[in-house]
Order: sequence, then structure tokens, then C-alpha cells
Amino acid sequence: MTTNITILGSTGSIGTQTLEVIGDLKSTGQAEFNVNALTCGQNIELLARQIDEFHPKVVGVKDEKKKREISKLIPNSVRVVSGPGGLVEIASLPDTQLLVNALVGFIGLEPTLTAIESGKKLLLANKESLVVGGKLVDRSLEENPTTILPIDSEHNAIFQALQAGKPKEVTRLIITASGGPFRDTPLEEIGRATPDQALDHPNWNMGHRITCDSATMVNKGFEIIEAHWLFGLEYERIDAVIHPQSFVHSLIEYQDGSIIAELGEPDMKVPIQYTLTYPDRLANNYHRTSLIEIADLEFRQLDIERYPAFEVVVRAGKLGGNRPAAINGADEALIDQFLLENISFGDIATGLGYVLDEVEPIEDPTLEDLRNTDSWARKKVKCLVADKALGTQSN
Amino acid sequence: MTTNITILGSTGSIGTQTLEVIGDLKSTGQAEFNVNALTCGQNIELLARQIDEFHPKVVGVKDEKKKREISKLIPNSVRVVSGPGGLVEIASLPDTQLLVNALVGFIGLEPTLTAIESGKKLLLANKESLVVGGKLVDRSLEENPTTILPIDSEHNAIFQALQAGKPKEVTRLIITASGGPFRDTPLEEIGRATPDQALDHPNWNMGHRITCDSATMVNKGFEIIEAHWLFGLEYERIDAVIHPQSFVHSLIEYQDGSIIAELGEPDMKVPIQYTLTYPDRLANNYHRTSLIEIADLEFRQLDIERYPAFEVVVRAGKLGGNRPAAINGADEALIDQFLLENISFGDIATGLGYVLDEVEPIEDPTLEDLRNTDSWARKKVKCLVADKALGTQSN
Repeated sequence: MTTNITILGSTGSIGTQTLEVIGDLKSTGQAEFNVNALTCGQNIELLARQIDEFHPKVVGVKDEKKKREISKLIPNSVRVVSGPGGLVEIASLPDTQLLVNALVGFIGLEPTLTAIESGKKLLLANKESLVVGGKLVDRSLEENPTTILPIDSEHNAIFQALQAGKPKEVTRLIITASGGPFRDTPLEEIGRATPDQALDHPNWNMGHRITCDSATMVNKGFEIIEAHWLFGLEYERIDAVIHPQSFVHSLIEYQDGSIIAELGEPDMKVPIQYTLTYPDRLANNYHRTSLIEIADLEFRQLDIERYPAFEVVVRAGKLGGNRPAAINGADEALIDQFLLENISFGDIATGLGYVLDEVEPIEDPTLEDLRNTDSWARKKVKCLVADKALGTQSN
Repeated sequence: MTTNITILGSTGSIGTQTLEVIGDLKSTGQAEFNVNALTCGQNIELLARQIDEFHPKVVGVKDEKKKREISKLIPNSVRVVSGPGGLVEIASLPDTQLLVNALVGFIGLEPTLTAIESGKKLLLANKESLVVGGKLVDRSLEENPTTILPIDSEHNAIFQALQAGKPKEVTRLIITASGGPFRDTPLEEIGRATPDQALDHPNWNMGHRITCDSATMVNKGFEIIEAHWLFGLEYERIDAVIHPQSFVHSLIEYQDGSIIAELGEPDMKVPIQYTLTYPDRLANNYHRTSLIEIADLEFRQLDIERYPAFEVVVRAGKLGGNRPAAINGADEALIDQFLLENISFGDIATGLGYVLDEVEPIEDPTLEDLRNTDSWARKKVKCLVADKALGTQSN
């Protein structure tokens, strides 16, 4: 049996690994996927190679300019669409059963809503869909019940551990966090860490923004918001815990006192494959490390002093409405400023705090409201930098 | 809804805790069990108190003498049976849905076979049923399919972790072992350890034999044999690993590379409750320790030099037939001799090795064959001690 699949963001880290897993499953004769559509932002050359290998019928690119560029590299038979409208069009293609949303950023929310409305099984790697649009997604799911399979290793682990019990029996979700590059850095040095230091993640090999986010632990705050929406649990029942080895991907505590955990190599291909083949688990030969080799699994309290941005993000999640949208937009803008060395590492948390304090609250935002909040937050960051409210420490 | 339940071995460690859990579930209004029958070996006074609290219709005791004693302590309306025949009679009572087999020793095998034949759901704590009688139990299950829910924390953990996948997707079972009291003892001192030292288990509070067995790791060898029969996996796919904290109760590695583990307080009431309420998980207020308090989960290779008896037991399991029966009988006899200080701690492994070398093999033993092998092994141990083949080191 062949499953039709669409991958939004196919040239990014999750997108390329998804295609790799699809190739591996085919070459072992275990499962066959027909790649219906792919989309990318900038990396036209890679997209052209993917088209050559996987023969999608439709592809999406960032804009008209990229559309003209890709059209020269690929057969005429492949239809090319562009821009956010193209993403939404591709997300609604009727002959796709699985939609992988591996887009990075706020732009991923609308295709998520479209995929749910058009009844597709959604394999979700785009954080913003739930961080920013959790309530919209939740409402859409009520009207169009479908399955969301989280690709992110932490949520994937929780999803797996949930198979061993019932949702109403869960008392606590425990999300593990590597602690990032500044886990053991003296507190007073963290604020003036350089971009090179922040991008040096100890366990996972990921994109720039997500690596910075795991240095500030904004990432982990977002994951708590995502878990809240994905698993329908109040924030008080979702904990984050520092686990330097990244070997335990997350845990569930059930009301009977049993804790169920999913463990393994920090390799995104494993959760990707699980979402592709769920509810089956198919074989692969990805690298495994034994417990004996790991030898030690450590767990420590997440220290808010070390990760002040984490606290701001979780607070934004609890407040709800458009606050997470503000935090998400601001965070992206702050990381840009940090990577440009316009602000210090410590300014990221400070800036998030300012933005959360100053955002005009909307309790039940529309997609349009969220977009406006996102733009406001990005502008706000620029103003904070221009006004030297941020950036004084690093300059 | 009330479930009728019978507990064989109600005055032992598992039996008393099972009644405690039943009481707790009733007092929280979550589940009601009607205790149909109880049995005990020697502890008549405790049995009388249990009868007073739980009002079973039938009870079983060790022999006619104990029957006369208990009859004086309890109402005439309670029927009393005795001996192994009484156990079998109670195991076949038609109005019982759940049978807890918490008997200690070879005597537990026949009631297990009876319970399966009479279609009861079996909550199994009696190790010998599978260690000695695995093949008989397996054959009986083929003819009378029913559910066996393992109470033992390791197998219960595996059973829980199996809910997150399919049996055919399992590549490896990883059974954790605390390492017992001699985990860190210098190798050359272990052979002459005293009974007091061997009975000082670091994590679990259990009976004498099982505590000695976890010092020699005979226990862990038996658990591997049990897992082989319970989960239908070849021995090459079942590992034991030293885990000093006893917080991870066991793990499953699936073919996709995901490892699912069950963790928690080393408290037998948790797996007991799970078997009583399966497939539900009900609430309780048993003590919990957080991952932060645990802080460190260590895993080390099980060292055969430190635990030579473990290797003998697993070898007996792989050879199959009546060898595990020989090892089980011999182990009980050797522990008796060790607790009487007739032989050294090191002699337990040596004695098991002799018995395995000398047992007359029967590849497809009947219950009667197993009984004979058990008797032979116990006699063999006495001969070894009388002949001073064992005991020279300690005397």
C-alpha cells in the first residue's frame, strides 16, 4: 500500500530527514510513500534534487523570483506555486493523506489549519502552529477531528508513552531539556555569551534559531505550550527537567504512580519514522547507544536564574491569547539581533520580558490578530534596540 | 461492579500487599473486589485476621493440623481446605474471575495450571510457575487462552511498556537488577559473605529466599527465564543490566530504535494495583520520588564473575527441559544450608553448577517429572554437603 504524502519545508533539517526516512523505508521494502508535493523557502538547488528523486506533482517556493529560478531547473510537468498562498494551496491538496508541516516560523500556522480543515493526518514539526495558534488549532480540531502526530522528540516521546495508558489517567508530563550550551557556564558569564557559544549545542544538530532557543530555553517554554495544547493538560501538570544526556526524551507520570518514558539516541529520524508509520513501528538500522554505554542518566531542576527567558515564555503561555504570538515574533527578532551582535545574549530574555509587559492583550485572537501581534513584536524589538533599551551590555 | 478475587499465599509479602491495595481501592471508592478465597502456609493468626476483614467463603491452609487450628479461630461458615489438593481446589473455584498466585515455591505451579484450565485471569507472582513449569504453562495457554498479568516489578514494567507497541516489534527486553547487597563488595570477599550480609538488600523489602536470590542474582536469572515464557522471546533478546537505584523497573527496545521504560518508586503496591485494575490505571497516594530527587540513574554491565550463579541459571533456562526445576530445587536447598551456616555464600553458585552438570535431562517433562527432579535436586544438595563437596570454605 502506498501513502500519499506532502512535505512543507522539505529542504530544512526535518524535511530532509523525512525524505531520508521515506527513502530508507522504501529501500528496506517496509513501506512505500508517494511524495505528492514539496515546498521550500530559499534552497532551490536542493529542492530541484529532491524533485528529481521523489517526483512530486506540485512544489511550492517562497516567491515569484524563486518560482522563475526553479522552473528552469525542473521538468515542465511539475507545477510550481509560490508564497504563503501556495503553501495553503498545497496543504489542501485533496489526494494527500499525510501532511508533514516542517515549516519554520509563524508561516506554518495557516497550512496547519488548512490541513486540519481538509481532514489530513498532520505530522507536525512546526512549533508556531501550537505555540502561537494553539487555540485556533484546538477549535479547528473540534470541528474537524483528525490526528496530529508530533515529530518533535519530546512530544513524540509523550505521544508514545501515552499508548501505555489513557489521557485522563495522566497526572504529569515531564519534558526533558538538555540544558543547552550554557548548562554549566558560570551564571555571570551567560549574559555576555557570543553567538558562536550559543550555537554550540551539545547533543542535537539543529537549525540556528532552534539552537539559540535551546540556549535560552525559550525552546523548552514553547514545548510546554505545545504540550498544553497537544495533550490538553493544564500548565501546572507540565514540568521541564534538565537531563544533560538527552537520552530520555520525555516522560509521563500516571495517577497510579507509574512513570512511562521513551528513551533512545537523540536522532530525529526515529520520531519522524514513528509518525510516518504510526501505529506500527518498523525496523531501521539507525545508530543505537546501549544503556551500558550511556551509563548515567542525570536529572536536575531547571534553574530559572540560569534560564530567565524560559519563565517569560511559560508565563506568556499561561496568560494565553496573543501573548505567545508576541513572544514568538519578538524571540525571532531578538535572535536576529543577537546573531548580528547588536544585542547581548542576556538581552534576549530581557527583551522578551519587555514585550510581554507591553503587548496589547487580545484574549481570543483571530489569525489576523496574531499576524498583527507578530509584526508589532518584531517592530517593538527594533525600537528597543534603536532606543538602546537593549544592546548596552554588548556594545 | 464488583470483581471476585482469590489470593493464594495471602499472608506473604505480595499477598498482604494485595489485600492492602484492595482495601485502598475500596476506601477511595474506585474499585470493589469481593475476596472469595484466601490461602496461607503457616501464619494462621494473620489469616484469621484477614478472614475477619475480608470474609472469604473458603480458605486453604498447609495441612490438617493447621486446619484444626484455624477452625477454632474463625466462623463455621468459612470452609477450610488443606494441602496442595486444597490449593488446586481453590484455584478452580468457578465464581472467581481473578486469581492472584502469590505462593512461594514449586507448589505454585499446579494452581497456576488449574487457574489457566478454568479460564481465570491470572495475576502471577509465583516465579516457579514459569521458571520450572514454563513449557507446561505455555502448552496449557495454547489450549485455554487467558491473560497472565505479571506482578513482579520487572515483568510488570515490561508488560506496561508493551502497551506502546506490538510484540512482534520488540527487539530486546532489558531487565534491571539492583545488584543486591554485594554490588560493590570486593570480589574476593563475596564468597565468604554471612547470611546477615546477604539479607541486607539495598532497595526492596522482600522475603528471605528472594533476598538471598538477589544477592546471588539467581533471582535475575529466573526473571530472564520467566520473561522468555511470558513474552515469547528467545534468550538472546533478553538482557539484564545493573541499575543500582531500582527506579527504572525494566525496558523494551523496539525495532524502530525507541526504548520504552517503566519507572517509579520501588513499591510492589504499584504493579499489584496495575494487575488488579488493568487495563485501567487508578489513583493512589503511595509515596512518589521525583526524578530530581533521584538525580542519577546508573546502568552498568552485569559482571558474571561477581554473579556466577546468574550464568548457571540462564544456562539452565536455555537448556530447558527439567534443568530449571533442578536449579530451583537446588537453590532453595542451598539457601537453607547457607542460612544454617553449613555452606558459604560462594557455595550456592558452585552447588548450582554441580546440580546442572549432574541432572538427568528430561526434555519434555511432565508435572510428575518436574516434582521428581525437584526432589532429586534437594537430595543432591544434602549429599554434596554431607560429602563435603560444599561447605569446606565456611567450616
